[in-house]
Amino acid sequence: MIPEISIRRLCQIYRLLERLKEAGREIIFSDEIGEKTGIPSYQVRKDISYLGEIGKPGRGYNVSELFEHIKSSLKLCVKRKAVLVGVGRLGSALLNYVNLPKANFEYIAAFDSDPIKEGKSEGGIQIYSSGEMAPFLKKHNVEIGVITVPQEAAQAVADDLIKGGVTGILNFAPVPLKVQENVIARCIDFSLEMNILTAIKSFVQEKAEKKK
Amino acid sequence: MIPEISIRRLCQIYRLLERLKEAGREIIFSDEIGEKTGIPSYQVRKDISYLGEIGKPGRGYNVSELFEHIKSSLKLCVKRKAVLVGVGRLGSALLNYVNLPKANFEYIAAFDSDPIKEGKSEGGIQIYSSGEMAPFLKKHNVEIGVITVPQEAAQAVADDLIKGGVTGILNFAPVPLKVQENVIARCIDFSLEMNILTAIKSFVQEKAEKKK
Repeated sequence: MIPEISIRRLCQIYRLLERLKEAGREIIFSDEIGEKTGIPSYQVRKDISYLGEIGKPGRGYNVSELFEHIKSSLKLCVKRKAVLVGVGRLGSALLNYVNLPKANFEYIAAFDSDPIKEGKSEGGIQIYSSGEMAPFLKKHNVEIGVITVPQEAAQAVADDLIKGGVTGILNFAPVPLKVQENVIARCIDFSLEMNILTAIKSFVQEKAEKKK
Repeated sequence: MIPEISIRRLCQIYRLLERLKEAGREIIFSDEIGEKTGIPSYQVRKDISYLGEIGKPGRGYNVSELFEHIKSSLKLCVKRKAVLVGVGRLGSALLNYVNLPKANFEYIAAFDSDPIKEGKSEGGIQIYSSGEMAPFLKKHNVEIGVITVPQEAAQAVADDLIKGGVTGILNFAPVPLKVQENVIARCIDFSLEMNILTAIKSFVQEKAEKKK
C-alpha cells in the first residue's frame, strides 16, 4: 500500500498536471514539479515511482502521460455519486462550486432538516428532507457524503450516511468523526488550516529576521 | 527550523488537546494522541520533541501543559488581524463560522467588488468596497488575508493584499498563487481534498477485498 502522505502528494501533483495539460504543456521535470508544488524533487520521483515505471531518466515526464497514469492508478477516473447534508451557507457554496463539472464526483442530492428547504434546489441539486435520506442512499448506491451541518449534528449525520452505505466522508464540521475501519473520513477544518498558516508564517519570518 | 509537515501535525495535536482540555482530560500518552489523530505515535513524540523537552518517559503528557507548550511554541497565542476578500456564498459562510471566537485570528473587515454589498455586514463584519482595501490594510496593520473570490480574480487580490502588507494568505480559489518568499500562501482546494479522499478509499477498499 502506498503511504497516505504519498497519495496526498500524488493528488497535488495530479492537480498541477491537470492545469499544465490544459495550458498545452508537454514535458516536465521533477525539479519543476517540486518547485510548483513545494514537494522536494526526490520525493516527487519517489512518490511517482510507487505507481510503477514511467518516464525516462534525464528526459522528464510527458505531462499527459503522467496525468493519465496518476489518474488511473489512483482511480480518479471514476465519477463517484455524492450527497451533501446541511444546506446552510457553506453547503450552498459547495453545491454551487464552479469546478464541479471537472471533479471526480457528482452530487445527486442534498439533504436538510429544515422543512422550508425541502423541494427547493441549490446549484441545480434537489434538496430533500433528512427523513428521506436512508432509503435514497440505498436506492442510489451513494459512495460519498459531504457534511456541512453544525458540529453538534455531524456525528449523527455520519452514522446515518454510513448506515446507508456511504464509505467516504468529507466533513466540514470542526469535529473529528468516529467511523469504522472500512470508512474513510477526512475533515476540512478551517481553524486548523489557519493555525498551520500562522505557525509556518511565524517560523519563516523568524528565520528571515535572523538573517538580517 | 521545524519541518513544515511537523508543524502541520503539531497543529493537529494542538486541536485535539484543545478538545480534551475542554472535556477535562488531564493526562494523555502519545499512543492515544496517535490513535486520535492518525499520526504514528513515534512521530507524535518526535514532533513534540522539536519544541524542546516536555513530559516524562512513561508518565504521559499533561494535557494543559502540552497544549500551552505547543500554543506558545507555534505562536498560536497571538490573535492576528485578518480580512476576507469576496463576500459570495463561501465568503459569507466563513464570516459566520461559529468557531471564530476561539480562533487565533479575527476578521476586522471584508471587501467585495460588488457595490451592492458595500456598507452591509456579514457575521458582524463590515463589508467595504475593493477600492478601499489598500489604505485600510496599511492603516490597520493587517497580517492575514482570506481569499474567497472567483479563481480568475484570485492572483490580483493576492497581489493587492501583499502590497498592503499582508504576509499570510488562506486561498479558497482553486488556483495556485504566486507570492514572494516572505509571504506564506496556503490553498484550501475542495477538489484536491475529494481526490485524496477517493484515492485513499480506493486503496483501503482494495486491501479489504484482497483480505477476503
